Amino acid sequence: MRNVAVVGVGQTAFGKFLDRSLKGLGAEAIAGALDDAGARAADVQAVFAANAIAGLITGQEMVRGQVVLTATGIEGVPVVNVENACAGGATALHLSWMAVASGQVDVALAFGAEKMAHEDKRKPVLAIATAMDVEEPIDVDSPSPFMSHYASRIRRYMSDTGATATDFAMVATKAQRNGALNDLAQYGDASITPEDILRARSVADPLTVPMCSPIGDGAAAVLLVAQDALNRFPDAQPLYIRASVLVSGSDPDGGGAGAIERAARAAYDQAGVGPEDLDLVELHDANAASEVMRYESLGLAAAGDGPKLVRTGTTARDGELPVNPSGGLIARGHPVGATGCAQIYELATQLRGRAGARQVATPRVALAENGGGWVRGDVAADAVHILTT
Amino acid sequence: MRNVAVVGVGQTAFGKFLDRSLKGLGAEAIAGALDDAGARAADVQAVFAANAIAGLITGQEMVRGQVVLTATGIEGVPVVNVENACAGGATALHLSWMAVASGQVDVALAFGAEKMAHEDKRKPVLAIATAMDVEEPIDVDSPSPFMSHYASRIRRYMSDTGATATDFAMVATKAQRNGALNDLAQYGDASITPEDILRARSVADPLTVPMCSPIGDGAAAVLLVAQDALNRFPDAQPLYIRASVLVSGSDPDGGGAGAIERAARAAYDQAGVGPEDLDLVELHDANAASEVMRYESLGLAAAGDGPKLVRTGTTARDGELPVNPSGGLIARGHPVGATGCAQIYELATQLRGRAGARQVATPRVALAENGGGWVRGDVAADAVHILTT
Repeated sequence: MRNVAVVGVGQTAFGKFLDRSLKGLGAEAIAGALDDAGARAADVQAVFAANAIAGLITGQEMVRGQVVLTATGIEGVPVVNVENACAGGATALHLSWMAVASGQVDVALAFGAEKMAHEDKRKPVLAIATAMDVEEPIDVDSPSPFMSHYASRIRRYMSDTGATATDFAMVATKAQRNGALNDLAQYGDASITPEDILRARSVADPLTVPMCSPIGDGAAAVLLVAQDALNRFPDAQPLYIRASVLVSGSDPDGGGAGAIERAARAAYDQAGVGPEDLDLVELHDANAASEVMRYESLGLAAAGDGPKLVRTGTTARDGELPVNPSGGLIARGHPVGATGCAQIYELATQLRGRAGARQVATPRVALAENGGGWVRGDVAADAVHILTT
Repeated sequence: MRNVAVVGVGQTAFGKFLDRSLKGLGAEAIAGALDDAGARAADVQAVFAANAIAGLITGQEMVRGQVVLTATGIEGVPVVNVENACAGGATALHLSWMAVASGQVDVALAFGAEKMAHEDKRKPVLAIATAMDVEEPIDVDSPSPFMSHYASRIRRYMSDTGATATDFAMVATKAQRNGALNDLAQYGDASITPEDILRARSVADPLTVPMCSPIGDGAAAVLLVAQDALNRFPDAQPLYIRASVLVSGSDPDGGGAGAIERAARAAYDQAGVGPEDLDLVELHDANAASEVMRYESLGLAAAGDGPKLVRTGTTARDGELPVNPSGGLIARGHPVGATGCAQIYELATQLRGRAGARQVATPRVALAENGGGWVRGDVAADAVHILTT
């Protein structure tokens, strides 16, 4: 397998854009990634496209990627449409990496695009619930059936570790403060406090609305190239993919380890680094409690010590190990299929030292974790990527 | 890249099964493929799952493959959900091939499963129309918007080549006669005549209902293994993948060649064989005219000579180059996401000499072509695989 570099990243602003199309959003992100790399449409040799719910929102199924590409100059190359719930973007990235690493192609494009905002506000909420087995009963009366399902696990985590709703409110506060420094973020509030977060409307105890990732639209794209073909893009500032791992839940041989933990372990093995080497993490904070629990799954904290990282400010933007400086899913936003690529956009921007007001101190090793769906009592898909300068 | 073998194939009966679930159909096909290889669920190291319209028919989006896998013993391994309209099955196969050929895994499973039949008969018909850009106008009053869109191209082909509706009726007759010998086929009629086909209800001139692939449910699965790991399956009867190619439409450098032609050329190059070496073909007869036009795109006939292959009986089951002995999409059926894997089921069954009454004479080299969607005036995705004993 060959070494693979990220040479271009692109992202649209995330938000609620009832007047924008999937095609327009996707094309903007792709143009950004090509431009960033100094590449032309004709350089792209394969495309992996992620989207989660267009079939249920815009009615477009089956050829979502090809339809987006009609608004770009890219044509004639293999296009694969992938879905993996909220982990679709990282799944597209993983397949792009495989296509380049294996020598199938030298240059591959991964992108994710999502339209969620809809005049009928229940529509995206119910669409997101299809990240579970639709034959199993869901609480359709809940403000968010998907978040309701998280809540019982979160309450168990609180009782096991002593994590409190205030810890989660602090995570959500961090997200809003980071989002306030990110022009592309859907939300951001530099003056919000944990008390504001706790006082907000409840979704499912202990989660309040600003602790949960919002409904939003947007797209992100990543251009990958084989290290030995980097000379095609002399103006690019490459970053190297040291690990690209995709797993699904409930491994009978996993010794009880969940999908996120197994993905992280495999990624550390592949990259030859450990959590102690990381300078920066973008993780899948579907809600604020998920972030704290993931500190442990990713090995950033010992078992039960997740809340300590919040209380000590370790994962703040100016802390020892900044987590989600982009604002994360909660504040940057979470247009489902786009998120995995948006995480790479943030890592690349930070690793290149171009993150402006939200820049973290000279990072060299960074990790992205993107999870999706819920089947058989575990995330249905989880992908971890490790990038270095 | 390593050599890759097909060691197991499985397929359900195709038909209209309002009482069967996507999960049950998929699990049956997967169990068949494992059993055929003498493999256990734990042998599978990666899964690529194809489905086209469950989001619009059953409401299941995002994690369709993982949901099917809950009814099998397969868990914990990477699962990628792919869509490429009617070419989803072959896209899943292509990615499985890439995962094994590249050394990512030794054993990969591709499967496609589709539920199309619905109490509201317009629902699947409109769902299939999402294989085009849904922002462009379609004729929703047509009995089949997707077939209507084919018809104008077919009429041009008739005027260019002298192909007649009777030629297409002969293809449909061949399909029904072959289907009558296939226990898993949705349709089959050993006594039907071209006159019967011509007299049937019109869909869009010149196509009549029995010239078009039907709405149906079903699943098919293919288990792939690296040649150097074949000793894990001592009871399997392996077949070798000599080419696996995926393209999309409208290549500006294609010299006017359509996607099907470019996919075929690339596959012949990869396999080091030409159309003259083929003993057997399963191609994407979305309708009977598509089959005749594809004879030319795949290089089985010179430009304009497609109809000759019908008139001379060349592509009949007992002809020089049997095409679609399974009954093809028209008679075996076309549960969209399943078709690409069902084609491999047929090739493997024939190459192993196990096709019973529909066995063609000792084939050694076989080709499958699976196309899908319609974007920018060409198929949105086309995949060609070449298998040998």
